[in-house]
Amino acid sequence: MDKSRLEAFSDGVIAIIITIMVLELKVPHGDNFDALTSLIPVFLSYVLSFIYVGIYWNNHHHMLHTCHKITGSILWANLHLLFWLSLFPFATAWMGENHYASLPSAFYGFILLMAAIAYFILQHLIIVSQGTNSLLKKAVGRDLKGKLSLALYMIAIAISFWAQWISQGLFILVALIWLVPDRRIEKVLVDKENRTP
Amino acid sequence: MDKSRLEAFSDGVIAIIITIMVLELKVPHGDNFDALTSLIPVFLSYVLSFIYVGIYWNNHHHMLHTCHKITGSILWANLHLLFWLSLFPFATAWMGENHYASLPSAFYGFILLMAAIAYFILQHLIIVSQGTNSLLKKAVGRDLKGKLSLALYMIAIAISFWAQWISQGLFILVALIWLVPDRRIEKVLVDKENRTP
Amino acid sequence: MDKSRLEAFSDGVIAIIITIMVLELKVPHGDNFDALTSLIPVFLSYVLSFIYVGIYWNNHHHMLHTCHKITGSILWANLHLLFWLSLFPFATAWMGENHYASLPSAFYGFILLMAAIAYFILQHLIIVSQGTNSLLKKAVGRDLKGKLSLALYMIAIAISFWAQWISQGLFILVALIWLVPDRRIEKVLVDKENRTP
Amino acid sequence: MDKSRLEAFSDGVIAIIITIMVLELKVPHGDNFDALTSLIPVFLSYVLSFIYVGIYWNNHHHMLHTCHKITGSILWANLHLLFWLSLFPFATAWMGENHYASLPSAFYGFILLMAAIAYFILQHLIIVSQGTNSLLKKAVGRDLKGKLSLALYMIAIAISFWAQWISQGLFILVALIWLVPDRRIEKVLVDKENRTP
Repeated sequence: MDKSRLEAFSDGVIAIIITIMVLELKVPHGDNFDALTSLIPVFLSYVLSFIYVGIYWNNHHHMLHTCHKITGSILWANLHLLFWLSLFPFATAWMGENHYASLPSAFYGFILLMAAIAYFILQHLIIVSQGTNSLLKKAVGRDLKGKLSLALYMIAIAISFWAQWISQGLFILVALIWLVPDRRIEKVLVDKENRTP
Repeated sequence: MDKSRLEAFSDGVIAIIITIMVLELKVPHGDNFDALTSLIPVFLSYVLSFIYVGIYWNNHHHMLHTCHKITGSILWANLHLLFWLSLFPFATAWMGENHYASLPSAFYGFILLMAAIAYFILQHLIIVSQGTNSLLKKAVGRDLKGKLSLALYMIAIAISFWAQWISQGLFILVALIWLVPDRRIEKVLVDKENRTP
Repeated sequence: MDKSRLEAFSDGVIAIIITIMVLELKVPHGDNFDALTSLIPVFLSYVLSFIYVGIYWNNHHHMLHTCHKITGSILWANLHLLFWLSLFPFATAWMGENHYASLPSAFYGFILLMAAIAYFILQHLIIVSQGTNSLLKKAVGRDLKGKLSLALYMIAIAISFWAQWISQGLFILVALIWLVPDRRIEKVLVDKENRTP
Repeated sequence: MDKSRLEAFSDGVIAIIITIMVLELKVPHGDNFDALTSLIPVFLSYVLSFIYVGIYWNNHHHMLHTCHKITGSILWANLHLLFWLSLFPFATAWMGENHYASLPSAFYGFILLMAAIAYFILQHLIIVSQGTNSLLKKAVGRDLKGKLSLALYMIAIAISFWAQWISQGLFILVALIWLVPDRRIEKVLVDKENRTP
């Protein structure tokens, strides 16, 4: 299995996901400010999901960079991740159109959680395929960010039935945690290069 | 004709097909559990079709891996396959929205059957183009999986007018048959490599 | 300007055009045969346009194969072609939904004509950029197929106001003319290779 | 970070944006001239945005051509640009459907302005990453075109509440400014090559 075709296919799917989300921003019928302001909740949920998909694309790229052998299970774990990402437009629109009501917020958190678990599985399978000297293993380390994200998603889901704005805050917090440049993989790659001679 | 552009175009079309299927999962108007549960049939048909398109993408990749000469007929056989795959979103949504009623289930089976026949034709043309020592021919062998799938699709179509849930079971069965890793092509490639020196 | 990125972008746009056309095949509400048969006109127009877009993708690929220098005018002529191709889904759906009425049929012919003219311009600019020994010039020759297509489109547009079924016949005829393998470019490339030593 | 994957992803997103804009050209129900002419405003706004996205794709390509190191900030500045471009279909349709009313025209100008600012930021970050001998810095020079565009967008936004047709004229003017071949980057690249021996 050729890595470049897996990357190209994943890029294609992620590019489509990030773009069709905007189709849920339905063109309003009026031409006044009210028509525009009524779209703000859907717009904000679009911004949040755009950032999340951007983070996934970025991390997915770095992770595959360390991977040289695509096995059948890696391929299906990758499709599994794309499956949950493909539900982002739906979850985003449902949450936005219902003004961040409890259940849609919890559902949005659930999709984020499932995507994170799918990412975790894919990461695990790549590490296993790389054997004892796994470059990705070194890069990820104890994966505090990954585990923290899973925990925060679960808290956000539970809390959304009482205080859904805290859930939104947690969704933003996780995005910020990942937006802070993650130099782990780059660092390990550089380290390795320096040691090579 | 350049194989890489054929692959890139096919990847693009398949990536779009797998992603626009999710657009048929219409965002519900309510924000309660009923709104969500009413989507379960459409969601399940989406999962099934996502897996099918994933299988086609995977198999398509392996098949083209053995192919070095793209003739005009291979090109059009490939477009013919993409045509039937492009009808998956329609067939999936029609079946899901009608809660797996007889005719939509039969129609879904018909689209699966036509895609399988199109795949069969493409496979046949690549084998013919490779001549007597066809690598793909060796990999496919008697193509039991392919022939079994065709038979099961036909049974599923016929049976859907009496017991459409058996049809659904057959659709899932065929997907499982293909999900089990198919090492035929990989095996032949490795064998060949070992014999080469 | 890098040819591979122009090809990749064109492939992307054409892949999306060919796939979103199927979105005009709206999922019917009923689950009976009537619901399905009512879609036949839209389906047939989809088949015709799918073949046309496939022909364009194929010819576009062959044409760019001979082209090594992408100038600014070639780039914009290419975008101009993609513009008219992007109107295929609209024209296809309008014609199909109105059961091949006169004006939608004429409009469909008009979009085909404009795409053909855009293709002609792009071809001309590539030939000019290649200078006196243009490979594409040799391959295209007097371009009888191209000129015949333009004439047939114009006749089809005019005739659609009296006998729109003849227009449909002409649209199918032009597609068949192009579906017959066009070995002109391949032939010239092979000739050149043979002469090279 | 690999430049080719950043380019491929950007191309994918831009290809989808340019193509889904046409989905806002809703298929009319009638089959007469009135049905067609009623679409002219939406069609014209589509033409304008198609040209704008084409210009962005073209310039984006040239800019990345000079860039060899993709840092985390360049990656996110690129996603930021894609974000504003992704709002083109929405802004285009809203302006077209409301026959170029004041607020939708101002909003369209605002999206153009934000995309231009995002492009400016991306350009700045690439220049910074290239250090003192930045090739892009030489190519862009004082960036008169870029600064003029920003000024014209702002004037167009302000003026749209009194005379929205002047705003439209300004939008067309900026597009024309960029359509005139911009040989700055190509020139610098050629200059550099000539000096290299």
